[in-house]
Amino acid sequence: MVDTDVLLIGAGGVGTMVAFGMDYTKQSKLSIVVRKDFAKVKETGYDIHSVDYGTVKGWKPSHIYPTVEASVATGTVYDFVVITTKNLPDIVKVEELAAPAITPGHTCVVLIQNGFDLAKPFFDKFPNNVVLSGVTLIGSHNTHGTIHHTQTDKSFISYFENPNLPQEVQEASAKRFVSIYSNDKNSCTYASSAKEFRYKKLVYNATLNTVCALTGVDTGRLEQAGGLAALSIPAMREVIAIAQADGVTLPKDVINTTIHGDDGEWFEPSMLVDVKRGNPIELEVILGNLLKTAEKLEVETPILSVLYELLRVVQFRLKEKQGIITVPKERPIYDKVYE
Amino acid sequence: MVDTDVLLIGAGGVGTMVAFGMDYTKQSKLSIVVRKDFAKVKETGYDIHSVDYGTVKGWKPSHIYPTVEASVATGTVYDFVVITTKNLPDIVKVEELAAPAITPGHTCVVLIQNGFDLAKPFFDKFPNNVVLSGVTLIGSHNTHGTIHHTQTDKSFISYFENPNLPQEVQEASAKRFVSIYSNDKNSCTYASSAKEFRYKKLVYNATLNTVCALTGVDTGRLEQAGGLAALSIPAMREVIAIAQADGVTLPKDVINTTIHGDDGEWFEPSMLVDVKRGNPIELEVILGNLLKTAEKLEVETPILSVLYELLRVVQFRLKEKQGIITVPKERPIYDKVYE
Repeated sequence: MVDTDVLLIGAGGVGTMVAFGMDYTKQSKLSIVVRKDFAKVKETGYDIHSVDYGTVKGWKPSHIYPTVEASVATGTVYDFVVITTKNLPDIVKVEELAAPAITPGHTCVVLIQNGFDLAKPFFDKFPNNVVLSGVTLIGSHNTHGTIHHTQTDKSFISYFENPNLPQEVQEASAKRFVSIYSNDKNSCTYASSAKEFRYKKLVYNATLNTVCALTGVDTGRLEQAGGLAALSIPAMREVIAIAQADGVTLPKDVINTTIHGDDGEWFEPSMLVDVKRGNPIELEVILGNLLKTAEKLEVETPILSVLYELLRVVQFRLKEKQGIITVPKERPIYDKVYE
Repeated sequence: MVDTDVLLIGAGGVGTMVAFGMDYTKQSKLSIVVRKDFAKVKETGYDIHSVDYGTVKGWKPSHIYPTVEASVATGTVYDFVVITTKNLPDIVKVEELAAPAITPGHTCVVLIQNGFDLAKPFFDKFPNNVVLSGVTLIGSHNTHGTIHHTQTDKSFISYFENPNLPQEVQEASAKRFVSIYSNDKNSCTYASSAKEFRYKKLVYNATLNTVCALTGVDTGRLEQAGGLAALSIPAMREVIAIAQADGVTLPKDVINTTIHGDDGEWFEPSMLVDVKRGNPIELEVILGNLLKTAEKLEVETPILSVLYELLRVVQFRLKEKQGIITVPKERPIYDKVYE
């Protein structure tokens, strides 16, 4: 199996621990793409403080590249391309970012990312490739090559159903990836339905992530302020209804387990952290894709839709702040008659 | 008429210009309550840079008091008490703040404040007093006793209908207040229906103020980002429907005129400014009271209700920041089973 070539794109907090986990199993030859801290990581590697692996100084995989293009310049054909970047299709399309490293009909793409219905753009571009779903519960942060990994690496690997390929082939790829990644320190298991895990995670991400991002409070304060009961829980029921219409019956206690998951912590969900830092938010893959599905299935989403439209404006602000979009110096006056 | 005693409470940006306008007409003996900058204003007065009155250095009215209690210590019975504070019933109840200066059955209360259904707490406390409504379009800011008054002082005075008093009495009080306040520099007119003016202003305040406050953008960027069309305009239709159910038919072009009112300006509405400065927002009088009316009249408010619940959480955050409320150090764990 050491002739299995794996490329990981996006070695931040989560990505580096996924990379380290794969390197630890020694079941593949691992390359990574590091964009932001390339010079430093190439020189001195990562310093890792991990709840699972302890302290590791100066860790490096087989190859470190500054770009995806550089990772294929040597002619390597990757068997797996693992993508652990943030998923911001309104800014960077991951299927285009990763494309140079994906061999049509061969490379198995693994999306360890937040969000819903992530495989569609890959299936459009690479109709005969397997695309795997990795839902991870890890907690890990990267500060310029120093990793603080505080919540154990627990992940569920499934495949996004590609109608052009036999299910057995897709299942085999998923299980092969589990064997590359799973070790005695982490927990990586095969799960038969990507959809169910994605919906389960959305019960949290679409409702607590979003409301906290809009209101500027952690999940504890949200509960204290009444917003959990007034907004997030009714929004959770909308997610459950979409899942149901999509053929996925979520567990009866999903709302309860989701909420009590943060028990005792004044926890700031990732979307709130992004807003506070002025970083664009994973809005389209978390809410945008979900609402497209809801519309197709004709499920009413009164709260989620308002949250989405509000966050689209927040995203506009964050993008302007980062210079991704600009507005004219003078506010344009439109003749439009509003009715 | 110079034996008419007027007390103004809340001499900030708007309040000081209202006070100055009344002082300018010389139709009353004017006292003001200045809480924040009392020492400075008592000593050196206000420096005013006004679009209506030009530059005035060291202006002072007849009396300046640090508290409402101090304003009545001399035994003055006020004929008018004009309240120009922010209206934050969830923090300070203005009817209680002003109570010492209000003589039951005598003092006419004038509320020059944002919001809707403002007279109710006064009618509960002072069932036989006239309560006037002042809707002002002024633009004026106060920085420690220096006033920058940039948009002309245009106001509409009406009475909130007190069922215990003859309409003629209430109308006469309103017109008397106009004569005290109106001069050759400002524009102060009697308007027969407070309700209609309040609803008109809510078409803006309930929909643009709120959405801008939640998303952190001005009204121009809101339009650019698509939030005006997706959220504010549909929310305006909800306000119009509430008004209609309440017997007020707003002009057909009210949405259009409201939106084009900010033409050419990247304008930050007051609620956004408050959020940015970390000040509590006038949520209850702008949205809370409106939604109570909507509920009573059984008008559906899918967007306004979500905006309200989100802003309640924002208000919680702002109050915590100001030390008005606190949360325990450890996040409490509730046994509650969420369903």
